[in-house]
Amino acid sequence: MTDDRPQLRVAMIGYGFMGAAHSQGWRTAPRFFDLPAEPVMSVIVGRDTVRVEDARRRFGWQRAETDWRAVIDDPDIDVVDICTPGDSHAEIAIAALDAGKHVLCEKPLANTVAEAEAMTAAAERAAARGIRSMVGFSYRRVPAIGFARRLVQEGRLGAIRQVRALYLQDWLRDEDGPMTWRLDKTLAGSGSLGDIGAHAVDLVEHLTGSQLGAVSGTLATFVEERPLLGEGVGLSGTASTERGTVTVDDAAWFTARLAGGEADGAIGAFEATRYATGRKNALRIELSGSRGAIAFDLEEMNELQFYDATAPAGEQGFTRIIVTEPEHPYMANWWPTGHAIGYEHAFSHEVVDLVTAIASGTDPEPSFADGLHIQRVLDAVERSAADGSAWTPIP
Amino acid sequence: MTDDRPQLRVAMIGYGFMGAAHSQGWRTAPRFFDLPAEPVMSVIVGRDTVRVEDARRRFGWQRAETDWRAVIDDPDIDVVDICTPGDSHAEIAIAALDAGKHVLCEKPLANTVAEAEAMTAAAERAAARGIRSMVGFSYRRVPAIGFARRLVQEGRLGAIRQVRALYLQDWLRDEDGPMTWRLDKTLAGSGSLGDIGAHAVDLVEHLTGSQLGAVSGTLATFVEERPLLGEGVGLSGTASTERGTVTVDDAAWFTARLAGGEADGAIGAFEATRYATGRKNALRIELSGSRGAIAFDLEEMNELQFYDATAPAGEQGFTRIIVTEPEHPYMANWWPTGHAIGYEHAFSHEVVDLVTAIASGTDPEPSFADGLHIQRVLDAVERSAADGSAWTPIP
Amino acid sequence: MTDDRPQLRVAMIGYGFMGAAHSQGWRTAPRFFDLPAEPVMSVIVGRDTVRVEDARRRFGWQRAETDWRAVIDDPDIDVVDICTPGDSHAEIAIAALDAGKHVLCEKPLANTVAEAEAMTAAAERAAARGIRSMVGFSYRRVPAIGFARRLVQEGRLGAIRQVRALYLQDWLRDEDGPMTWRLDKTLAGSGSLGDIGAHAVDLVEHLTGSQLGAVSGTLATFVEERPLLGEGVGLSGTASTERGTVTVDDAAWFTARLAGGEADGAIGAFEATRYATGRKNALRIELSGSRGAIAFDLEEMNELQFYDATAPAGEQGFTRIIVTEPEHPYMANWWPTGHAIGYEHAFSHEVVDLVTAIASGTDPEPSFADGLHIQRVLDAVERSAADGSAWTPIP
Amino acid sequence: MTDDRPQLRVAMIGYGFMGAAHSQGWRTAPRFFDLPAEPVMSVIVGRDTVRVEDARRRFGWQRAETDWRAVIDDPDIDVVDICTPGDSHAEIAIAALDAGKHVLCEKPLANTVAEAEAMTAAAERAAARGIRSMVGFSYRRVPAIGFARRLVQEGRLGAIRQVRALYLQDWLRDEDGPMTWRLDKTLAGSGSLGDIGAHAVDLVEHLTGSQLGAVSGTLATFVEERPLLGEGVGLSGTASTERGTVTVDDAAWFTARLAGGEADGAIGAFEATRYATGRKNALRIELSGSRGAIAFDLEEMNELQFYDATAPAGEQGFTRIIVTEPEHPYMANWWPTGHAIGYEHAFSHEVVDLVTAIASGTDPEPSFADGLHIQRVLDAVERSAADGSAWTPIP
Repeated sequence: MTDDRPQLRVAMIGYGFMGAAHSQGWRTAPRFFDLPAEPVMSVIVGRDTVRVEDARRRFGWQRAETDWRAVIDDPDIDVVDICTPGDSHAEIAIAALDAGKHVLCEKPLANTVAEAEAMTAAAERAAARGIRSMVGFSYRRVPAIGFARRLVQEGRLGAIRQVRALYLQDWLRDEDGPMTWRLDKTLAGSGSLGDIGAHAVDLVEHLTGSQLGAVSGTLATFVEERPLLGEGVGLSGTASTERGTVTVDDAAWFTARLAGGEADGAIGAFEATRYATGRKNALRIELSGSRGAIAFDLEEMNELQFYDATAPAGEQGFTRIIVTEPEHPYMANWWPTGHAIGYEHAFSHEVVDLVTAIASGTDPEPSFADGLHIQRVLDAVERSAADGSAWTPIP
Repeated sequence: MTDDRPQLRVAMIGYGFMGAAHSQGWRTAPRFFDLPAEPVMSVIVGRDTVRVEDARRRFGWQRAETDWRAVIDDPDIDVVDICTPGDSHAEIAIAALDAGKHVLCEKPLANTVAEAEAMTAAAERAAARGIRSMVGFSYRRVPAIGFARRLVQEGRLGAIRQVRALYLQDWLRDEDGPMTWRLDKTLAGSGSLGDIGAHAVDLVEHLTGSQLGAVSGTLATFVEERPLLGEGVGLSGTASTERGTVTVDDAAWFTARLAGGEADGAIGAFEATRYATGRKNALRIELSGSRGAIAFDLEEMNELQFYDATAPAGEQGFTRIIVTEPEHPYMANWWPTGHAIGYEHAFSHEVVDLVTAIASGTDPEPSFADGLHIQRVLDAVERSAADGSAWTPIP
Repeated sequence: MTDDRPQLRVAMIGYGFMGAAHSQGWRTAPRFFDLPAEPVMSVIVGRDTVRVEDARRRFGWQRAETDWRAVIDDPDIDVVDICTPGDSHAEIAIAALDAGKHVLCEKPLANTVAEAEAMTAAAERAAARGIRSMVGFSYRRVPAIGFARRLVQEGRLGAIRQVRALYLQDWLRDEDGPMTWRLDKTLAGSGSLGDIGAHAVDLVEHLTGSQLGAVSGTLATFVEERPLLGEGVGLSGTASTERGTVTVDDAAWFTARLAGGEADGAIGAFEATRYATGRKNALRIELSGSRGAIAFDLEEMNELQFYDATAPAGEQGFTRIIVTEPEHPYMANWWPTGHAIGYEHAFSHEVVDLVTAIASGTDPEPSFADGLHIQRVLDAVERSAADGSAWTPIP
Repeated sequence: MTDDRPQLRVAMIGYGFMGAAHSQGWRTAPRFFDLPAEPVMSVIVGRDTVRVEDARRRFGWQRAETDWRAVIDDPDIDVVDICTPGDSHAEIAIAALDAGKHVLCEKPLANTVAEAEAMTAAAERAAARGIRSMVGFSYRRVPAIGFARRLVQEGRLGAIRQVRALYLQDWLRDEDGPMTWRLDKTLAGSGSLGDIGAHAVDLVEHLTGSQLGAVSGTLATFVEERPLLGEGVGLSGTASTERGTVTVDDAAWFTARLAGGEADGAIGAFEATRYATGRKNALRIELSGSRGAIAFDLEEMNELQFYDATAPAGEQGFTRIIVTEPEHPYMANWWPTGHAIGYEHAFSHEVVDLVTAIASGTDPEPSFADGLHIQRVLDAVERSAADGSAWTPIP
């Protein structure tokens, strides 16, 4: 190996869905992008010895550990990538940052505002020592989103007055679907609001450069009890006759006032739900501006609809841009024109941007402060909903 | 003429956009449907002598009048069709009903709840004497809507839990567009809310058989002053340098709780706007149920998207049904399969249903009471918006 | 009636599907367009006394006749509108033209090239005396087609190199569907080729200004025998056990070389079929040029897809133009932006253009010579198919 | 490493676009699928020392070689993966097979029928010794294609009567685009026909289980001369004033008769072009059957349109199935419902199927015999085109 780039030795905590996605990012990014440092998939961490070894083998990490503190103490580890559920983010991230590790933390940043605040403080302390931190809102790195952002920044939409942001899934449609940890507020923090609504908020703020300043929100739980899976039965087990209580929102709606950026003074309408029958992963963003509009749907993630209101009368319409051209963000490094990329590519792009920031000594985005802000938005929505949808400012 | 059907002599008040649409309905319905009575386009009424005569000739009415009271007093008139702006609906409709004329009144029923209440009382008095009344929510008569309603009634959607209802237009996008009477609260009653939001509310209630029980609403005016057209200059005149104040909402959002019908307990998210850049006439309704879903967009008015959640796993998806089959409402009377109908056909269908109801001695839908209910919804949205989006029950 | 425009008294021969469509055109055009002459729906002609009287009443004509020669001899008739099956076009049209009547003849112009030649000769004789003639290729008058043609003429597509033109229907998909006159070569002339393929050829030539110069064709009949309907049983009768032989093509494919106009040197790929399962009325035209492209589908007849290859790299894509703006052909006379028109509107536009041509003393398009040319193309396709798809020049 | 699966040591020849895609397949497949053997990315081969070493590093192979014969002679190599241009396929593949290596050969199998015949003979000799061979028509492994094939095999389409198969790209639209080796018949064999038309033929045969029996074809070259790139200037150089002659087809059209399988007796219409302005990678397949239809477009590769003609009248329509469910081929191993995969995933699936076949001692598909058949189809199209589109049987 004549490669003289520095190495970045990575430890990843967690090996579920996000662990698989992050592993694919770490593995693939260096194969398609000229990175300024070489990421090494050093350690994967999980509590269960057998499962973590299985994940190590499947995902291709060099070593497995069962205690995350081992990698915090390991001087050979440069980056800690946190893919655990939200309730453990704060403890791990703060320890890692204090130990001088760069941290990539999966979204949401934390389950509570207080935790997120502590994490942000830790990130700011660490930044002063050149330690970088980043929240994993991966959809920012979908090329169509990056391209949309460029159009907004170039003024192609003019003054953005209205925003529509929906994240529609339908996997809770069946009322006999089982109770899971994601429906338990203690473990999951919130329901659709935090799990997928957070993405909608982040994308709107990322695209417009604006921030939600106040919200009026509503939450609903449509199915209040769901069958418990028998003990030790696991996901493939038959449902028991006992039922557990759903303690999170099934769906969330909120109206928001935006301030700053290109959507200063705009109103946004948000919805996050797991009951939108037939919608599988429809994260839809539409920005309506005085000079143009964009519309995006994650179910067609390689496309962006752009409306140019300055085109001649009679020729205006939404243009379906297939976002696979070398001019589009990240795409010059993949396949020829017209060849689609998939969900996982956003994680490769996340790795590219994080490694580049670490190597160049700059702070990657979104920061922990950005993640904290999102938590505050979610918290304000919950408080507004509890207060009869009263308008609630974001602190 | 060996036609032995009774005649229905119609007088239409007003000759603007709606006058043109209603005329096309009266003229065309008898050519494609076997009506139990023969409508006769007797009198058109307008205040301006020259303009009403021009409209008479263009629209093909037998006679023109300049005072609407003339037709109220005319014993030869059976039906009064009111196409004037909302501020004159109440006076005309009540006079006509009291004089024993059947009444078709364009939506919205009135500009205020009080007027709508008086009209509804008049309609109920008249109904006791066999006089019929109907509000012109024409989109109920789009075949795709009728077909969607049938699917809902047959239980194909199961329990409807969520509703999305948007009416998106963009003709106010340009901040230099002129001030018009539609932007003046005194004349227009409200802005997007009443003009197009009313359609969204009516369709949701019509499709689900449910009623909005309470709302949390927000209104916004994005452009507060617009150029005044010079006096006597008219629509083709150049804009003056003076600006008038917009006194209606530019856009309205509201969340609603539904009760009764197939969407009992559901939450609906509504938006009505004239600032949705690039959206020309996008009245979009999506109903998410436990067994299925439908999605409709008026910009593709000959299509209905239907998702059957009881189909085998792996074969589910939204089916794009081209609603031009003889099995679809009204369509057997038009063209062969695959041949589109347009905006105006809903007005022919309105005529078919009104004439049929009159001839058969039944009450057509939507009734004035339905129209009053819609006014109460709009009023509650305005009161909620004025009260910080507080949840406001519909009386 | 103070109208001082001249009248044009029309006699329509035939009262089937096309009779209904033409009647709607004659009835509606004067209501939305300021015509230079006033069409009068004078006489409808059909052989069956009872049926023609029924059609007269339904379609709203003043008088019914059972012999088309009566209207040829009637000095009060100015225009003869021929809506009969193709085998009678020649005799009626030639008689009408020789009698000094303007003629609108439904497509295809005739069932044979020889008949079409005789008709064209008659039209040319008549033209010398100021008598006008026109073939009813109504789809030329769909606004999206008119707008596409304008884009082509303005050079927005550059040199057109490839054409795709398909007309896909599926009403013969079911092999147990009955034998009808349309499947009998003696009556219908040809099958999909002449019935719907003719539209594809006409639109391509109209849009590009080019002509098909030579073709290589293939015909197929997939279901060779179909159930005969019992005598006197009619369309609602049950199928008999006897089967009749299909003698026309079920589907036709041909490749063509174009010459002249904007597609000089281009290759076109054509398909016409009634077996395209799920396609109801999909007349699809795509023109691929050096500077741009257009794509049209009659199933979305209010839309045109336009690709501008001169737009900046990264911003190119097909723009979905909703063809309902006042800038679009014919649309200023209908409804506001975003309000769809339907199939029948093209017949109103046909009336507008014919009446305008007659009043202004100009020759309308498409001419009988254009119709003859289309017949020659269809004939060449049949001869090529019979000759092993050998390239066959259009005379 | 406690993995007790056998290893499969792979040597890949070539490192261009296909080398990158195959590398991604070899690297990724074992991370998402439980393979019965463990592929090892042993050797990458390329003629240029510097470039192959760069590719080795980027793509992650263990060792680089500059002479492909070195891997043929290497007893440690189990699989040879041929990603070179078509003119070298025959020599390498035959040598590898004769040396007992399993072979994956990128499509098209060869540039001539004679070469393909020799390769097929070698593959059959090798098969007798348990050596496997496969042609890389990767699009067979797109899940939507696999799912469509299942629907066809289950009889859901009934008798397929018509096929539409187009592969539309537009990268030659600009007549000033440079001359490249792909436009030189000596190097590329043919143009659009072999490069992309071959995919369309393979997919149609794969989906239907039928074979093309005879073709009537047309070829065209629209731009006959293109600017030469200066010597030694490379792809980034400025175009010289000299122009080279294009010796391959720019576009190909052919009509085909199918025999056997589910489309016995059907007619297929094919087009392959690089001049379809605005179409980036539109491989479109539509199968029209007596009981249903499917439509696929590679530009929406995660979707399949399915029309069920046995659904109740009025409910029929194309259903847009998002092919990301665990019931769909390969998809259970990737991401949750609604999360898209991309172009490269088909190469992972190719690896899965090849490794599984090798480990289980079965012959993978498509075989070299399948590849030879495709070459014979392409050859017949060229001969038909040269013979005035005369129908030409496939040997």
